[in-house]
Amino acid sequence: MTEAVNQAHTGGFGAEHPIGVAVLGMGNVGTEVVRILLEHADDLRARVGAPLVLRGVAVRRTDVDRGIPAELLTTDAEALVARSDVDLVVELMGGMDTARKAILAALHGGKSVVTANKALLADYTGELAAAAEGSRADLYFEAAVAGAIPVVRPLIQSMSGDRVNRVVGIVNGTTNFVLSAMDETGADYAGTLAEATRLGYAEADPTADVEGYDAAAKAAILASLAFHTRVTAADVYREGITEITAEDLETADAVGCTVKLLAICERMPGTDRLALDGSVVETPSLADVVAPQTGGKDRVSVRVYPALIPRRHPLATVNGAFNAVVVEAENAGRLMFYGQGAGGAPTASAVMGDLVMAARNKFYGGRAPGESVYAELPIAPIGDIPTRYHVNLRVADRTGVLQAVSGKFAEHGVSISTVRQEGYDEGARLVVVTHHAPESALAATVAALAELDSVTSVTSVLRLEGTEE
Amino acid sequence: MTEAVNQAHTGGFGAEHPIGVAVLGMGNVGTEVVRILLEHADDLRARVGAPLVLRGVAVRRTDVDRGIPAELLTTDAEALVARSDVDLVVELMGGMDTARKAILAALHGGKSVVTANKALLADYTGELAAAAEGSRADLYFEAAVAGAIPVVRPLIQSMSGDRVNRVVGIVNGTTNFVLSAMDETGADYAGTLAEATRLGYAEADPTADVEGYDAAAKAAILASLAFHTRVTAADVYREGITEITAEDLETADAVGCTVKLLAICERMPGTDRLALDGSVVETPSLADVVAPQTGGKDRVSVRVYPALIPRRHPLATVNGAFNAVVVEAENAGRLMFYGQGAGGAPTASAVMGDLVMAARNKFYGGRAPGESVYAELPIAPIGDIPTRYHVNLRVADRTGVLQAVSGKFAEHGVSISTVRQEGYDEGARLVVVTHHAPESALAATVAALAELDSVTSVTSVLRLEGTEE
Repeated sequence: MTEAVNQAHTGGFGAEHPIGVAVLGMGNVGTEVVRILLEHADDLRARVGAPLVLRGVAVRRTDVDRGIPAELLTTDAEALVARSDVDLVVELMGGMDTARKAILAALHGGKSVVTANKALLADYTGELAAAAEGSRADLYFEAAVAGAIPVVRPLIQSMSGDRVNRVVGIVNGTTNFVLSAMDETGADYAGTLAEATRLGYAEADPTADVEGYDAAAKAAILASLAFHTRVTAADVYREGITEITAEDLETADAVGCTVKLLAICERMPGTDRLALDGSVVETPSLADVVAPQTGGKDRVSVRVYPALIPRRHPLATVNGAFNAVVVEAENAGRLMFYGQGAGGAPTASAVMGDLVMAARNKFYGGRAPGESVYAELPIAPIGDIPTRYHVNLRVADRTGVLQAVSGKFAEHGVSISTVRQEGYDEGARLVVVTHHAPESALAATVAALAELDSVTSVTSVLRLEGTEE
Repeated sequence: MTEAVNQAHTGGFGAEHPIGVAVLGMGNVGTEVVRILLEHADDLRARVGAPLVLRGVAVRRTDVDRGIPAELLTTDAEALVARSDVDLVVELMGGMDTARKAILAALHGGKSVVTANKALLADYTGELAAAAEGSRADLYFEAAVAGAIPVVRPLIQSMSGDRVNRVVGIVNGTTNFVLSAMDETGADYAGTLAEATRLGYAEADPTADVEGYDAAAKAAILASLAFHTRVTAADVYREGITEITAEDLETADAVGCTVKLLAICERMPGTDRLALDGSVVETPSLADVVAPQTGGKDRVSVRVYPALIPRRHPLATVNGAFNAVVVEAENAGRLMFYGQGAGGAPTASAVMGDLVMAARNKFYGGRAPGESVYAELPIAPIGDIPTRYHVNLRVADRTGVLQAVSGKFAEHGVSISTVRQEGYDEGARLVVVTHHAPESALAATVAALAELDSVTSVTSVLRLEGTEE
């Protein structure tokens, strides 16, 4: 076998010629990557064909004992990347500017890069991919989305001969932990977030997670891969979970649902008047909304928001810090990928898979698939997106309120699926679930409802997803 | 983009130089592959970088109208493969000898091969991989296991930096359809199989499916990839579902379980006395069983059999013709992949993903990862495998029978977890669920039970899996 390998490789690396690795950043994931590189050196050598040798680890402070030889540590990431004995760079620093410079320097130098930096990728994949293309280096980023779960590679490779219509995922562990706990305990948002922070499931500054920025970056990456179209974080419509109340979970439960922060990437057919679930649209008004100005060209909708989903939906049972991604494609049908979406070791597993593939490519002369954005589908604005809504109203407890409320829905062309009246007097409320309606029509309806004398307040408006299933 | 691609490629294929494809076999999957090649030519060209052109389809009879130009059809697969304008070969004929010859001829000629032929791969992957290595061609086979679900690629690539400890899957749609229907309706095996045949879920000769041969071939492939060890179909312990009765499903239900045909690939630690679920073994007798003669080296157990699993287990909800595979790895933790495991279009999706990757490699000069069997772990015989058992006995309805039965279990060192007595007189039965015990000890126990005067018959012995979860 080694004979054959030696004869076959063309990458310039022999079986005895080690492949040098630089790791940038030694947080949770970096620490695990370094551990695996050192502890599993024999297995890795056998799988790559040549030894993977850790050349150094870039850290902010070298005066902390990190359990590895001190001479491996450096604060100079730039110099480490530039070393002639470094062939592969693992970027786990996070952040934008320094990480971007380091990755570009590596790629321009023909060094393959493995990164988990979703925020950077969501904005700069085009630039990074071009740099990789220019020097025939590899850019791998499986760990940027959904931790240990293989999602990036299946989308790039396994789906490359299919037509993806939808990707829906729970891709942020912190918010899923908070929403799962609220659902289970009935506690409010603030208290549950505090508990999540105490347990280490939320960071001291949880903004990126709870406001949906992290999920939006991942959605941009997933949509780019699914639709062969460059999608950046700015293209993603985003709402966080900070406004979700215990009452939202309670009213969701009353209709057999729970609330999840979903990342939704959808192809919106530009022809044939198809609805988002793939069925033919019956009502002309909705079809007009789905594809009013695009003619024959599909559009792409990418959005992150908390939504009700039925408890029988496969994503409803994904609890705690777990992630799951559902991919729907024309020929493959519906696929689901499930596993640990965060944490040092799971994320390191994804990084190491990429690292071994990048090393094998160095050794055998292979290449990772490059960026594919030929389709250049336009992004549909959120106002055009038809979804179902779950509207919670506090109302005056008197006759006629239901008629007044349903009249406002009808006026704006929003069809009601169910209405439920609850409570009495001051506590009286109406919970309205609509059929599919465009965001713009619903917004106009809500504005009109707020004007009604009989409506005390519009307590919450949440989308309802996954009901076609 | 096209400019950059033209400059970058090294595979000898320019953007205007088409990549020729031969398809061998035009059954369900072949028909879909041909349809996708013709209907989605533009997308495929954009994704590959050059057009994919169908050169011909090898079929048994050319006098059938297959909806494609007649000049594309040929009965001479060998000549089609040998054509100088064929660069990629898709083998969907099935069977052994002809398929093997065609694949070897292609690979020896430097033509990459995509195949879904699980039976062939289970026995000849070594030979095929060596041929691919020799000519630097690619051998892809995602479609051989679990249809549309990406499992092969994640195991080869995503898990390449991790240590897989277990792969458990429902990988045969026919048997899963039958067992799901028996569970739901209470009908017996023969009637349910007849219905499955009528609905097209079972073939006229269902032997390969219902006897577990199909699942065993897939298990061999999965185990080879998971453990970097060559595992062939002959290494797989195999039992089919033909002996499963309505009563088995009924007694399974009574303990909160259903019955599934499972493909189980397990690493059995040779050191540290680890149990199969990864926990440290408490009882010395079990540890002696787990690793009696292997010293420090891990062993591999690969087996296919119907087993009880708790209804709360993730695999218990995989019904009908769906497949699912659970992968447990040291760092990634538990991953699950779910989707359509069979059918023309889903399987064609997997074939097309492989075909696009193979074509991109031709165009960009890349390579698929080759075979990795360096670990060469020994296969553990089934007699060594500790599992839990669910034993169904028809007994005389008299005092003392429980004592006699439990005595036999104790004599052979098989520890009982629960015993349930049901019925009276002629219909009296005992259902015994054991703790983990080696197959050999259980077999001796069953032989001894059959000798007891108070035991009328041992109605069934089924394994119980997935209870640690």
